[in-house]
Amino acid sequence: MYKIDIETTKKQQIIDITDHISRVIDESKVKNGVCFVYSPHTTCGISLNEGADHDVKEDLINKLNDIIPVDDRKYRHIEGNSHSHIKTVVVGSSVTIFIENGKLLLGRWQSVYLCEFDGPRRRNVWVKILSEDKI
Amino acid sequence: MYKIDIETTKKQQIIDITDHISRVIDESKVKNGVCFVYSPHTTCGISLNEGADHDVKEDLINKLNDIIPVDDRKYRHIEGNSHSHIKTVVVGSSVTIFIENGKLLLGRWQSVYLCEFDGPRRRNVWVKILSEDKI
Amino acid sequence: MYKIDIETTKKQQIIDITDHISRVIDESKVKNGVCFVYSPHTTCGISLNEGADHDVKEDLINKLNDIIPVDDRKYRHIEGNSHSHIKTVVVGSSVTIFIENGKLLLGRWQSVYLCEFDGPRRRNVWVKILSEDKI
Repeated sequence: MYKIDIETTKKQQIIDITDHISRVIDESKVKNGVCFVYSPHTTCGISLNEGADHDVKEDLINKLNDIIPVDDRKYRHIEGNSHSHIKTVVVGSSVTIFIENGKLLLGRWQSVYLCEFDGPRRRNVWVKILSEDKI
Repeated sequence: MYKIDIETTKKQQIIDITDHISRVIDESKVKNGVCFVYSPHTTCGISLNEGADHDVKEDLINKLNDIIPVDDRKYRHIEGNSHSHIKTVVVGSSVTIFIENGKLLLGRWQSVYLCEFDGPRRRNVWVKILSEDKI
Repeated sequence: MYKIDIETTKKQQIIDITDHISRVIDESKVKNGVCFVYSPHTTCGISLNEGADHDVKEDLINKLNDIIPVDDRKYRHIEGNSHSHIKTVVVGSSVTIFIENGKLLLGRWQSVYLCEFDGPRRRNVWVKILSEDKI
């Protein structure tokens, strides 16, 4: 298993971690297989979406805040970050990506997102690769 | 493949099934690999989030009900459980978790959630493990 | 890796692609394993839910439009399809399904959904299978 450390800098922030994952694939020397990218946190998710236009990330954060507001008098969880937990469930804690010819096989516009919903914090991303290569 | 039976007791309920999954890992004798936890239902999802404070589960159910209400005159599905189907799509039907040194490798606060959206019912959870161990 | 082409015909549309995935499993000759179904797009997701009653698909699209409207003056992404990106993050870009005895092991009511949120377009679905079979 590979571990990546990411320092987030805002309360809510989407960070493109594609390059980190690509470096792990290079290091692994796996030619063909499946890569799993996992967040071990309960207030920080992992997803896939557009990396080219930064506005997509902003629109995603803003709309999630419309749907799941930071403050809601009905929230019972005493730490005050219920919204962060709920957003993490909605976004998900992991993604599955294919490896072909030694490279991460993303669609043309896809990037790997770390979705911080309760920052700023030091976050960990865990990566495992299951290889299809015959040894 | 391993099968787990869970009896849910409420209409909507989040049940921590981490111990069930851990027992499957123990039984499998797999040292290192990837574990897939899957719901074969269309009104019951699987997710990962905080297990320590029960209020997180309550806040999640309440907020999902704000977003996707049980009743909506626009729902067309005649069985009356459209909200349960939609919540299942939003939460997801499976999670991927790593196995290291024979143990389920969750983050410190993570638990595996069975998310019942149309209970009470008898639910099945399917588990498969892909091993990295050399035999 | 297997590639499937799907032509969508509407702006927003849920298409049952279960038969396409089953044919890939047949072709693969894998008896037992795990199948990953992946969308390389950022405005088109993959999910699992009921295939029997078409109204479930309609209710899902309608409710997602209530939550994440097509138009919102706050959206900044200049292409005008922010809602499609956000829906894709919420629904997810891939599903994991088990293979047993050479067949896709879905629950009784489960189908594989391609979720078009910015059509009509030609879409690709990528499929990889990790086999448990001893050769």
